[in-house]
Amino acid sequence: MSFLTLALDLMGGDHGPSETVPAAVQALSLLPHLKLILVGDLTSIYPLLQQNGLLGHSRVDTVHASQIISMSEQPAFALRHLKDSSMRVALELVQQGKADACVSAGNTGALMAIAKHVLKTLPGVERPALMTCVPTSTGGRSVFLDLGANVNCSPENLRQFAMLGSVVAHCVLGIENPAVALLNVGAEANKGNEQVRCASELISATPGLNYRGFIEGDALFQGVADVIVCDGFVGNIALKTAEGMVRLLSQASHQQMDGMSGWLQSFLTRFFKRRLSHLNPDQYNGASLLGLRGIVIKSHGRAERHAFSNAILQATVEVQHQLPARIAERFEAEPINRR
Amino acid sequence: MSFLTLALDLMGGDHGPSETVPAAVQALSLLPHLKLILVGDLTSIYPLLQQNGLLGHSRVDTVHASQIISMSEQPAFALRHLKDSSMRVALELVQQGKADACVSAGNTGALMAIAKHVLKTLPGVERPALMTCVPTSTGGRSVFLDLGANVNCSPENLRQFAMLGSVVAHCVLGIENPAVALLNVGAEANKGNEQVRCASELISATPGLNYRGFIEGDALFQGVADVIVCDGFVGNIALKTAEGMVRLLSQASHQQMDGMSGWLQSFLTRFFKRRLSHLNPDQYNGASLLGLRGIVIKSHGRAERHAFSNAILQATVEVQHQLPARIAERFEAEPINRR
Repeated sequence: MSFLTLALDLMGGDHGPSETVPAAVQALSLLPHLKLILVGDLTSIYPLLQQNGLLGHSRVDTVHASQIISMSEQPAFALRHLKDSSMRVALELVQQGKADACVSAGNTGALMAIAKHVLKTLPGVERPALMTCVPTSTGGRSVFLDLGANVNCSPENLRQFAMLGSVVAHCVLGIENPAVALLNVGAEANKGNEQVRCASELISATPGLNYRGFIEGDALFQGVADVIVCDGFVGNIALKTAEGMVRLLSQASHQQMDGMSGWLQSFLTRFFKRRLSHLNPDQYNGASLLGLRGIVIKSHGRAERHAFSNAILQATVEVQHQLPARIAERFEAEPINRR
Repeated sequence: MSFLTLALDLMGGDHGPSETVPAAVQALSLLPHLKLILVGDLTSIYPLLQQNGLLGHSRVDTVHASQIISMSEQPAFALRHLKDSSMRVALELVQQGKADACVSAGNTGALMAIAKHVLKTLPGVERPALMTCVPTSTGGRSVFLDLGANVNCSPENLRQFAMLGSVVAHCVLGIENPAVALLNVGAEANKGNEQVRCASELISATPGLNYRGFIEGDALFQGVADVIVCDGFVGNIALKTAEGMVRLLSQASHQQMDGMSGWLQSFLTRFFKRRLSHLNPDQYNGASLLGLRGIVIKSHGRAERHAFSNAILQATVEVQHQLPARIAERFEAEPINRR
């Protein structure tokens, strides 16, 4: 059996080791070909690792990192001064070829900055983008990016995101000639701001992209496009707003169950749980930082063990598809548009 | 009884008169103190008005307008060349003091441009903003703006939107000292782009605003702030994404009911309908164009009769609260920040 090795930043996220450690246990038991390098402040998490049977485990290595990047840390400060952070050490293991991918639930801005510095972008990629696959009403999934890695984007950045997303839709989701759309305030060509209108021109002039024009926010989950592109400011707010709506609906259901008979309440609770499950961020948790010379998966900061374990699974899928090599091939013949 | 008079643009929206005319009938029967001036291409809609008993109705006037602004029309073209459009004629009735407010489901960009030109903004207001009240998990409502009137905003625009929203939260929702937040990609002060960070400084320095800092998209429906401010590009996409999620959930429920017994299907269908109703855009339909010397309500383009009738009710509420006068008082002592 050929093993694949992931470096886990145990210290990141709102919950830290109390969730990332059990997630590691879960992933190891699910995937017999998985090896993990656990990175964190070993002095403080030693007892937790021991309790979970991870010390001396045949498929586990540990690497000590003395620093932690907090969720509110300035990315520039983290990049410059926290060189022994668990996040950075985990990324360096990928850069050194000791791990095939890195998974972290830590500070997104810091992960973006440090990953870019340590791993570098692939030739032709100006900026990495954060991507996830959202569920659609047609039962499929759409690639959605950027989710917050870049709060300011040029039209050329958006064009490159369209190319990155197309590679993922093709290689990972198996979609031939994936349809690409830009997220905008209207579907008509005259709608939106200068940024999206200019990006629209650039994308439609790019050979090999199956561009379908603008879509509005309400089409995001309708499966009308396989790849949906926007800047990181908009993408982050759109995805989190959708999450907020799922939570609102779930709270509203529970309120309306008051006064119902016990068995009906229990039936409805199970029904909602199943129904909301594939829309729950925990289920599609794991955003990929695309465009780097290595695989980096950003787990949701709020991720609990099950969600963090899903992010680990996603990393293994990208390793199996050798995503960075596929992206490099796509960008090889593609000049950066400097206009 | 003192009457109030609204001018309705019958021709706007995806459905046009086939929905706006029945909505007018519904609103007239609900509100005995309501008078309507129906504006549209009378030659084509005469039979429809007659069928619905609106010709010769004691509380209905009609005004002919020969042109229609299509949903895909360029706002600048509509402003310059479509001077006898139903939208413009309805707005002019407000400007001339013949109507207390105007309601249209037409092209948002055109409504914004023509309303600004015909009615003018109130002193101190640089740009009107499109606002709606979103439902929250605490059972209340939050004022959310801008929803797409301004795809490019300066920090000072955002500050003014915070003031506009605060007046609505206070006067219409009855909230003392409403809490204001800016929508951003993170709650920490260092997050986001230059625009929101600069707007945050301006808002926190504005006397009389109860500013609470940044919130993320998932807090939009949590009632953590009474007024939530963002630019129109982000606000439009966030709100429509939330609508798309409601639709996805509703479709997912129906799929999962296959194979259930008939009575259970019918019970669940009723349950979801009730549960989703207050989250449905139809129910909170009616966005206000704030900051003008007159009241303008933009109904959702997709609005059917019930939703358009809700937009009419909302217009009457703003007339009763004399919203433009309240906004004028708030901006009176407030200098425009030119930095």
